Amino acid sequence: MGYNIQVLCFMFLVSMEASVLATGTTPGIQDIFLGRCLAYQELLKPYPQTEVNCKTLWSTFNTSFAGKEPCSLTTKDYSDFIEMSLTSIPEDKAMFWSGTYRVAHDYSESGKRFITLEDTLLGYIMNGLTWCGQKAPPGINYQSCPPYNGCPETASTAFWGKASSQFASQAKGTVIILLDGSNPARPAYSTESYFAKFELPSLSPTEVKMVDVYVVHDINKPYRETCENGTLPTLQQAIKDHGIDYRCQDNPQSILHLLCVDSPGSVLCRMMKRFHRNNITIFG
Amino acid sequence: MGYNIQVLCFMFLVSMEASVLATGTTPGIQDIFLGRCLAYQELLKPYPQTEVNCKTLWSTFNTSFAGKEPCSLTTKDYSDFIEMSLTSIPEDKAMFWSGTYRVAHDYSESGKRFITLEDTLLGYIMNGLTWCGQKAPPGINYQSCPPYNGCPETASTAFWGKASSQFASQAKGTVIILLDGSNPARPAYSTESYFAKFELPSLSPTEVKMVDVYVVHDINKPYRETCENGTLPTLQQAIKDHGIDYRCQDNPQSILHLLCVDSPGSVLCRMMKRFHRNNITIFG
Repeated sequence: MGYNIQVLCFMFLVSMEASVLATGTTPGIQDIFLGRCLAYQELLKPYPQTEVNCKTLWSTFNTSFAGKEPCSLTTKDYSDFIEMSLTSIPEDKAMFWSGTYRVAHDYSESGKRFITLEDTLLGYIMNGLTWCGQKAPPGINYQSCPPYNGCPETASTAFWGKASSQFASQAKGTVIILLDGSNPARPAYSTESYFAKFELPSLSPTEVKMVDVYVVHDINKPYRETCENGTLPTLQQAIKDHGIDYRCQDNPQSILHLLCVDSPGSVLCRMMKRFHRNNITIFG
Repeated sequence: MGYNIQVLCFMFLVSMEASVLATGTTPGIQDIFLGRCLAYQELLKPYPQTEVNCKTLWSTFNTSFAGKEPCSLTTKDYSDFIEMSLTSIPEDKAMFWSGTYRVAHDYSESGKRFITLEDTLLGYIMNGLTWCGQKAPPGINYQSCPPYNGCPETASTAFWGKASSQFASQAKGTVIILLDGSNPARPAYSTESYFAKFELPSLSPTEVKMVDVYVVHDINKPYRETCENGTLPTLQQAIKDHGIDYRCQDNPQSILHLLCVDSPGSVLCRMMKRFHRNNITIFG
């Protein structure tokens, strides 16, 4: 219950090998689902999309898992629900991320700048939720769900895998992927990531012109992997093999500025200050 | 229905003189209220706070306005609701804003970096909602509510005025206020702003040690008002008269980095790029 979105997304989306403590279905899941669905459509809606009936959407989601054993689910169980809630994404707006939840979502700005899966109706509703079914009434298990890697892979990734691939299949134009070049515990491009397994294979080579790879490097930490080394050349090849153009940048300026918000005193970020002091007249 | 949060907050919180088209109570307001309340407490909760019963909170809110003529409401009508939902704020975390909705909320990062009213349970639930009552059943008017300035001031500011002052009264340590130094249509510090009318008067001179004023200047626009001129000296005097220390910075580095995310190619923001190219070795 105390999990924040970041931790939960890490559980769901980042690592399919992470072992987490089991917890039951999120209390109040139906109310949260309905409230988020209505708020997204009535108040937030960051880009034009067709309206969905929220109560019908809940029923469809509920049917997909309630009353079933949690480890028996497959992608097929979620098909109706996911297809009902995912709509088209404007050109040049789709953004993917792997190991970079925080910076990716700060950068996407809730869909105002770019659109991650979590900025779509489907991802916004489901972000951070835990759920599982049971055969006994009420069909939903609020006490305990299998840990993230507690079911065979096809079942545990059934929902987010299908959602990720459906999202990717809607992308057009240039897409962005934010990877983590500073994490000693995992490669920037992992063939076990959602991007490698579900998203890249679902990108349309006729609709998507370019994959713009941003390798994010923590301020004041060594560059572990850059565009030129580590796993990035493998990614380059995979994207080219898929028939899409590839471009790669280490900490592009926009991302660097975002990282500097929390480290304005670092050597790199301080340069701006010096310039600011010496050139105040350029402002008007 | 198509309003986004930013537009609605502008309506509600920024300008008490803005004239906006009338619209009815947000459809599904009860479901959105309940879903947001549960999601905030179960999933988001950006800082430790006591739990509130969401259904009781809705009843209390509903009692405050439903069945009443919209222009008859005063601060008193919302007292129970607001007092039930506002809890303490950690030291050095409270952040206020006036005319700077977007940058303030990008900077607060949903309460992870700083806490604005909209990052508290109360503000998170109410952000962007429209509501008004009517004497006839069902007591809530979904067709049309008075425009923002369509009631006497005491009524139109009843809710957000009281919420703002309650929020400010909980602040401790150093607080931040983000003002807009680039807007030709309104002064950086307006004596008609929520900050001037409700927040500053509610800050406790014994609990709050310092007001840190950040004057935000759009990249590539002239500095209209700075810490040294315009309405800022008036603010300085008002804060000192209230018995609190004052500090003022024009576009402090963290804010400047945030602004540069969208303008990395501007003269000011480009300096970082040059440094980055020439000094790549400092990274690792």
